[in-house]
Amino acid sequence: MPLSSVSEPTVSHDTMWGIQKPSAAPGIAHVRVPIPTVGPKDVRIRVTAFAICGTDLHIIEWDRWAESRIKPPLVFGHEFTGIVESVGAEVALVKPGDRVTGETHVYCGLCYACRRGLAHLCQNVTILGVDRQGAFADFVVIPEGNVWKLHPDIPEEIAAIHDPLGNAVHTALAGPIAGLRFSVFGCGPIGCFAVGILKASGASWVAAIDRNPLRLELAERMGADVLLNVEKDDVAGSIVRLTDGRGVDGMLEMSGHPQAIRDGFESLANGGRVSLLGIPSAPLEIDVAKEIIFRGAVVQGINGRIIFDTWYRMQELLLTGRLDVRPVLTHQLGWSEFEKAVELQRSGKAGKIVLKRDHA
Amino acid sequence: MPLSSVSEPTVSHDTMWGIQKPSAAPGIAHVRVPIPTVGPKDVRIRVTAFAICGTDLHIIEWDRWAESRIKPPLVFGHEFTGIVESVGAEVALVKPGDRVTGETHVYCGLCYACRRGLAHLCQNVTILGVDRQGAFADFVVIPEGNVWKLHPDIPEEIAAIHDPLGNAVHTALAGPIAGLRFSVFGCGPIGCFAVGILKASGASWVAAIDRNPLRLELAERMGADVLLNVEKDDVAGSIVRLTDGRGVDGMLEMSGHPQAIRDGFESLANGGRVSLLGIPSAPLEIDVAKEIIFRGAVVQGINGRIIFDTWYRMQELLLTGRLDVRPVLTHQLGWSEFEKAVELQRSGKAGKIVLKRDHA
Amino acid sequence: MPLSSVSEPTVSHDTMWGIQKPSAAPGIAHVRVPIPTVGPKDVRIRVTAFAICGTDLHIIEWDRWAESRIKPPLVFGHEFTGIVESVGAEVALVKPGDRVTGETHVYCGLCYACRRGLAHLCQNVTILGVDRQGAFADFVVIPEGNVWKLHPDIPEEIAAIHDPLGNAVHTALAGPIAGLRFSVFGCGPIGCFAVGILKASGASWVAAIDRNPLRLELAERMGADVLLNVEKDDVAGSIVRLTDGRGVDGMLEMSGHPQAIRDGFESLANGGRVSLLGIPSAPLEIDVAKEIIFRGAVVQGINGRIIFDTWYRMQELLLTGRLDVRPVLTHQLGWSEFEKAVELQRSGKAGKIVLKRDHA
Amino acid sequence: MPLSSVSEPTVSHDTMWGIQKPSAAPGIAHVRVPIPTVGPKDVRIRVTAFAICGTDLHIIEWDRWAESRIKPPLVFGHEFTGIVESVGAEVALVKPGDRVTGETHVYCGLCYACRRGLAHLCQNVTILGVDRQGAFADFVVIPEGNVWKLHPDIPEEIAAIHDPLGNAVHTALAGPIAGLRFSVFGCGPIGCFAVGILKASGASWVAAIDRNPLRLELAERMGADVLLNVEKDDVAGSIVRLTDGRGVDGMLEMSGHPQAIRDGFESLANGGRVSLLGIPSAPLEIDVAKEIIFRGAVVQGINGRIIFDTWYRMQELLLTGRLDVRPVLTHQLGWSEFEKAVELQRSGKAGKIVLKRDHA
Repeated sequence: MPLSSVSEPTVSHDTMWGIQKPSAAPGIAHVRVPIPTVGPKDVRIRVTAFAICGTDLHIIEWDRWAESRIKPPLVFGHEFTGIVESVGAEVALVKPGDRVTGETHVYCGLCYACRRGLAHLCQNVTILGVDRQGAFADFVVIPEGNVWKLHPDIPEEIAAIHDPLGNAVHTALAGPIAGLRFSVFGCGPIGCFAVGILKASGASWVAAIDRNPLRLELAERMGADVLLNVEKDDVAGSIVRLTDGRGVDGMLEMSGHPQAIRDGFESLANGGRVSLLGIPSAPLEIDVAKEIIFRGAVVQGINGRIIFDTWYRMQELLLTGRLDVRPVLTHQLGWSEFEKAVELQRSGKAGKIVLKRDHA
Repeated sequence: MPLSSVSEPTVSHDTMWGIQKPSAAPGIAHVRVPIPTVGPKDVRIRVTAFAICGTDLHIIEWDRWAESRIKPPLVFGHEFTGIVESVGAEVALVKPGDRVTGETHVYCGLCYACRRGLAHLCQNVTILGVDRQGAFADFVVIPEGNVWKLHPDIPEEIAAIHDPLGNAVHTALAGPIAGLRFSVFGCGPIGCFAVGILKASGASWVAAIDRNPLRLELAERMGADVLLNVEKDDVAGSIVRLTDGRGVDGMLEMSGHPQAIRDGFESLANGGRVSLLGIPSAPLEIDVAKEIIFRGAVVQGINGRIIFDTWYRMQELLLTGRLDVRPVLTHQLGWSEFEKAVELQRSGKAGKIVLKRDHA
Repeated sequence: MPLSSVSEPTVSHDTMWGIQKPSAAPGIAHVRVPIPTVGPKDVRIRVTAFAICGTDLHIIEWDRWAESRIKPPLVFGHEFTGIVESVGAEVALVKPGDRVTGETHVYCGLCYACRRGLAHLCQNVTILGVDRQGAFADFVVIPEGNVWKLHPDIPEEIAAIHDPLGNAVHTALAGPIAGLRFSVFGCGPIGCFAVGILKASGASWVAAIDRNPLRLELAERMGADVLLNVEKDDVAGSIVRLTDGRGVDGMLEMSGHPQAIRDGFESLANGGRVSLLGIPSAPLEIDVAKEIIFRGAVVQGINGRIIFDTWYRMQELLLTGRLDVRPVLTHQLGWSEFEKAVELQRSGKAGKIVLKRDHA
Repeated sequence: MPLSSVSEPTVSHDTMWGIQKPSAAPGIAHVRVPIPTVGPKDVRIRVTAFAICGTDLHIIEWDRWAESRIKPPLVFGHEFTGIVESVGAEVALVKPGDRVTGETHVYCGLCYACRRGLAHLCQNVTILGVDRQGAFADFVVIPEGNVWKLHPDIPEEIAAIHDPLGNAVHTALAGPIAGLRFSVFGCGPIGCFAVGILKASGASWVAAIDRNPLRLELAERMGADVLLNVEKDDVAGSIVRLTDGRGVDGMLEMSGHPQAIRDGFESLANGGRVSLLGIPSAPLEIDVAKEIIFRGAVVQGINGRIIFDTWYRMQELLLTGRLDVRPVLTHQLGWSEFEKAVELQRSGKAGKIVLKRDHA
């Protein structure tokens, strides 16, 4: 699928550069669009770096999910960092010049979930770069309630990936870790982050599972104790054997693959926890009696990041030095290399790719 | 399927009456078998009343599950009560004459689950009347560690059903209840018990779902606020509508039906809990992305009863008077009416049937 | 201590009636003060009923706490209900004419506690009627984030006491309840509410403790199983004896008395929970080794209400009918009888007193 | 206080060497006593190494606690490791030759706490070397239910200190750790262990507090980020300042000192947890209103070790290599140097001292 490119309009004071899904078809466009306006509770951020999520690939490729959800034209993208450029009259948390990133789930604050402290499960959520204008652009606007002020010691390339790293933190920290054994299915960036978070949090044994040798290698660099390749290993059997017949205390699912979910359950200790983050592309079959009920499993659906509990703990894990995510950051490119980054990511030959602003 | 009957052998001091699965085929036999012996940590109980579980029907009918699990000849049955007749040398908890019932999951005490306080999820569990000689007999022997001493105010017919009532208590009490809304799928005895437990525990709204009008009527008598019949109601849609669009805070699944599980997820509030007790007869399809992940659901596999936390709380709920399970106890028969009880239970025209000893 | 009264100023369009602490001394004044203005995120409520909290008595009597905290002149009071009169431009939750009450802890939304979902423990909290203008007045203004919209079936006199009732709900629901035994120390309105909430939530046994026979009688009407009078009963010994030597599973402390806290610990089961809401007037001695450590107790400091989880569950408990707080509402008076209400409350001859608007 | 020494009796087949509190006075005796017999559920262990607990010093010095609890003559001691020498007829977990250590809280298995999975809070506990014959001897007998089989990779000197290390594991793991900040009051061996466990479990910041520079140095070697000396530092103020005004998320109290408890509360974040293990020698004053209630603190009494959840997680933390307790093991001596070890420990110039068998 070719990435199309439209001609750029003339630059004016009120427009900005952005990457857009221009219409209901595969491809993207580099365009100029109006700079988004700032409401009284909003913060406008001059983006300095961003990264491409798997969701962005779905939008670019225009798959069934994208078709059902995205309303073009849309500037998309939601993994980003930048500098506050202006703030609405009611904003107290930040001021122009502050380094920030943001929670990409824009919550209503009024629904049953939001009013009980579950804003990450807001019934009326709109997602940055999916349901509203995103961050692959010179500027992005988010509500004050979504802004995360960065600690000065957090480097820009890590600030740009707080969204997926936060997914991994939320998933890993959804239960006890220290002195327990884990499996992590799917060694894309989020799975690799999760391996590192588990190990930094005292997990005694982490098996990482994927089919891509490069990804497994990244998982190893993040601290995985055992690597299993679904192409050649008996995954569930190996995990059970290597855990003295017990199975793991916790399973983190980051792939969305039906076989991974099945292998994960099959190699889970009785009473273990299963934290599901990876999105299966279709409904899938589960042997509920054997895998959930008789095992006494606790299965958690993990969505987004806890606002902002996940963020504080992520910051602490990063600052303490024990969690070093740099092995996963395999490439740093410029915004003008967006198409190259997309190709790299599609090829499976990259971990996380951060793209930094390369124009004034 | 006819219930066969074998001729009774001559009675001796060392034998007892029992109901047996005599061979790998449908049917049962009233037989005389040796009275089970008492090891140093064992308790022998003179059974005074018992009840028939759905599991017993599977054994009688000899379905695929029974074929794979049961090794005839076997005296089966596991819902019972009685009087301690003799105890092993190491037993301290009870003495002859004590009224008791028992936890039917015989745990090893040595595995990873048992040694961490999860004996109800023992990796080496043997179940009374399934994997070892059961309670449809004059005497049954269980380890001291499985004995539950009855409070004097618990009547015999309720003592006989502590096993299924304990399932319901374990399921209902697996999360917060007071001031929350629930759905209960499946209004067999355990589902009806669960309705009563939820209401006694401060649930603000309980919807009961079944296809059998008699069972729905029993659920209503146990306190259900809304009855939904899967034959004619839009179950998930009704629940969502009746909860102001929120869905329920908790869903208890007691039917094992795929459609129930799907309806239950679909009418669950974001962040809600799903407690699965009903055993599906086959693997089933779940839309994991929509129903578990995006909903932030917490899904619990519920097995047996927490030993003995569930039992203490069950006793308290019964003694306090707020939980009255008598509406579900539709029939009390004698042991000689076992076949009649089986037919009644199969017909769906009964709630729980307790059978009391009718011979010396 | 006499209640003083200042002469009323002339009424104008922009002023309203209110009850004020006029200066740093005992007493109150009925005054006219400017109607509070409405910021963009604020809601102005025409108060229709209110109630007097113990905190208000401290303010009236001007004790050491009041001296250290209150900055007169101040219109005080924080238990109230009313009708939305006007809303700021950014308000979406309510509109004029809506029946409401409100969370009285005004939180900053920006501190470590608030940003992690613990707004009820905000580090910069300002309390209505304590740190900012309160509700004993024709109008009160609160932020939208503090407004609770009332269900139409909640009567006005109960709407007026959501603040103390919410304290009781928060305290009682801070752990499992169903099938467990409890003690409640202090049978003022909050303690009596807690008794009712525990019983509605399946507590199997509740002992209520106080020194005032009227209060004990109210606790009994709310469902207490046992009443103990500290003047004549051996409180801790009685609880231990009545619970078969175990002690209670949970203790709710609503009195703030050192002896109550000591008796409560002494009659707690090993591993039990202690939920402390009552405010001791001074530091107190605890035998930490015996009462907390060797007992494996879990002691919770309870403050305010969880925003708004407590509120939703309170509403549900009220609507379901199982929690009936009317026995505690011993008096309903008019605003012009404020001084009489204060005397009644001081005398210990009343439960909760609600005062309704008696002027246009 | 001098350590007395009695003349040794002649050795026979049926006696063994042991260290005894011979009478109700300060001092100890090296004696020969009968080898303890083995009941059907018991395990007799040939002790190979042991360590001296603070409790043992109390017994040696014969303070008020010892006077109230110990019934001489008693062979004391409870931190130990050894080899199974013989087992009772009912024992299945271990066989002669197995390397083991043991849980020193001998629980009844029958009380309300034990039957609900809280055996570490058994109402009828008897403690090894306190209420029954201990481990400072050639042989010690414990019930099978107290035996912990050692992994081959656990060295003897660490096996000997599983009891105090388990205290630290239980305390540290009593709540979430990863990405959170902690204070640890008291840097004796258990406090130092706790520092190491917290850091291995992803704590982002740990302040260690003591008055003894050697102990603070050990805490630093275990990974403490900040050392505070109560003799010269403003402990609470420093912690608040160094945590950006928030206070710590968790406080582990290992000293039992009233001032430590007060400082710990004062530097706790709102909603933080306090885990109390150190035993205060007398009741102490707490500002319950300010420190527990308004802070929304959760205070846990920690006793013993969770049987055997704590033990599994301790083993995993040790095997994974991230928890290295060797810096705290400052001395390894022989049994014949017992008095020297006692002096060293009393002097505050040692961390943990392990004593290995030095006679056949």
